[in-house]
Amino acid sequence: MTRAAAVAPLNIAITTGEPAGVGPELTVAALAGAQAHWPGVNFTVLGDAALLEARAGAVGVEWAALLAAGHVSLGHRALSVPAHAGRLDAANGRYVLGLLDDAIDGALSGAFDAIVTAPLQKSTINDAGVPFTGHTEYLAERTHTARVVMMLAGTGPRPLRVALATTHLPLKDVPGALGIDSLVETIAIIHHDLQRDFGLPVPRILVTGLNPHAGENGYLGREEIDIITPALARAAERGIDARGPYPADTLFQPRYLDEADCVLAMFHDQGLPVLKYATFGEGVNITLGLPIVRTSVDHGTALDLAGTGRADAGSMIAAIDTAVTMARHRRAG
Amino acid sequence: MTRAAAVAPLNIAITTGEPAGVGPELTVAALAGAQAHWPGVNFTVLGDAALLEARAGAVGVEWAALLAAGHVSLGHRALSVPAHAGRLDAANGRYVLGLLDDAIDGALSGAFDAIVTAPLQKSTINDAGVPFTGHTEYLAERTHTARVVMMLAGTGPRPLRVALATTHLPLKDVPGALGIDSLVETIAIIHHDLQRDFGLPVPRILVTGLNPHAGENGYLGREEIDIITPALARAAERGIDARGPYPADTLFQPRYLDEADCVLAMFHDQGLPVLKYATFGEGVNITLGLPIVRTSVDHGTALDLAGTGRADAGSMIAAIDTAVTMARHRRAG
Repeated sequence: MTRAAAVAPLNIAITTGEPAGVGPELTVAALAGAQAHWPGVNFTVLGDAALLEARAGAVGVEWAALLAAGHVSLGHRALSVPAHAGRLDAANGRYVLGLLDDAIDGALSGAFDAIVTAPLQKSTINDAGVPFTGHTEYLAERTHTARVVMMLAGTGPRPLRVALATTHLPLKDVPGALGIDSLVETIAIIHHDLQRDFGLPVPRILVTGLNPHAGENGYLGREEIDIITPALARAAERGIDARGPYPADTLFQPRYLDEADCVLAMFHDQGLPVLKYATFGEGVNITLGLPIVRTSVDHGTALDLAGTGRADAGSMIAAIDTAVTMARHRRAG
Repeated sequence: MTRAAAVAPLNIAITTGEPAGVGPELTVAALAGAQAHWPGVNFTVLGDAALLEARAGAVGVEWAALLAAGHVSLGHRALSVPAHAGRLDAANGRYVLGLLDDAIDGALSGAFDAIVTAPLQKSTINDAGVPFTGHTEYLAERTHTARVVMMLAGTGPRPLRVALATTHLPLKDVPGALGIDSLVETIAIIHHDLQRDFGLPVPRILVTGLNPHAGENGYLGREEIDIITPALARAAERGIDARGPYPADTLFQPRYLDEADCVLAMFHDQGLPVLKYATFGEGVNITLGLPIVRTSVDHGTALDLAGTGRADAGSMIAAIDTAVTMARHRRAG
């Protein structure tokens, strides 16, 4: 890498997501102090010009002045029909998907160093006649990625990070979805991306059991013995520091967390309640395993708050912070 | 109730549990300031006299002086063989069970207003030839209670409380263990005991879903629609304020918790990681539904710390605090 490349500003794209939700105003609110918060970073806001102007008003930001200052630019894509805060309209489904395509295309071409996504409403896209199961799945498909890993994290010098071995499955399907191979792959992705994108030379990963008390030596389930322990042994053969399985209810304590860069939980509701409790509205959703950097807020469209300016931009700011960190590490690598 | 009865001191029994573990020294450490912390409460410590004397030394407490001060008395039961810190010996299995029997008999006879239990090691009892699955199950059996509910709680003016619809089951058996009738009974026990033992006239119970995002309208599982929602409707018919099902990962946030007296989680690892994270070593395990008041520490025997005096008495102090609160409310009722 040349010196010139090292000092060129980062360019981060933000998709403003569902136009009836809080995404547009949270984006504007988060970027109001962009120059001071993120020096050396340029932002491209993907969304409809008139919509952003209107929602900027709701959060008391002079949008035109922010654009004129030079660190924030607009990637305009026109709404299909005017958007009303709090009122979903499937006519704008293709607009929402278009924003995401603009971001992915730019990231794949190298124009964007990272993508930050505001929340979208799956039903808006589905009702527009496009099958869509979620941001993460769409990103994997568009980037030809076979396996991605969902990780949620706080911010700060020693943030709690929780990755998931399984994500949006009915609870009854979780045990059957676990396998040695897939678990090893998941652990390897976490290890690799924590090294490359977070600058952790030897990431330490702590892994939960599936069952209460991590199965209590087989008395409360056998997946720890049959699947998780063998997967950890295989990860160790690859030189990965992944330990466990630990009982989930004792793992989230300082004596364990102080030693951990990431906790791998076996399923959604085993890992995310404590992560969201701990990060207190400032959690970030990170997709590991992609060729591009992608972070997201950890909340939904909050239709009831849209247009009021009362939604908290904490998670959006944290998502931008994390994207900047990851993109910087990736460039420095 | 007569005025005399109202001012008679409470009498709380503490079982010191596994003699090779931290129970004896945590009991002594917690009671060192008993007179100041819990005025108007007498304590009966159930355990071997020589063992308690020895472990009191480990935590720097003058045991004989504490007994002489008059608020703490000893309910001596002799060890079968001498106990060594950190070394389990099945020869003392019947001693451990005997302590528990002494406490239950005293509570049933009215001699004790509450029982606080230090941790025991199930294997010590099982290896002594006595089938034993846990404190809670044994208490239910000995008091002829058909259904009990495990609730963990913090302390303080507005503590987090988490009750469980299912407890120590392999994860794969959890969905099949949920039923409308059992869930209604569980909710009714929580409601009843929060009223009687915690002085909450109209307890508000928030109930999680079983599946991620509470099933997302059936897309991620049907138990919310088929079981939890009907159970909540039946509870409402009984005048119980139980609401849900809420996604577990968004429920543990101030905007929900500030309105809640108790969260009912569907299974162990959905509710306890966040509870233990939040209570930070000072959680209390409470058995609801029993005819007697019973609280417990929320940790195990910590064999590696036994005899060192380094184990933290925070959970034992919290368990005693909670037992005192519950016993006072029960007397006042």
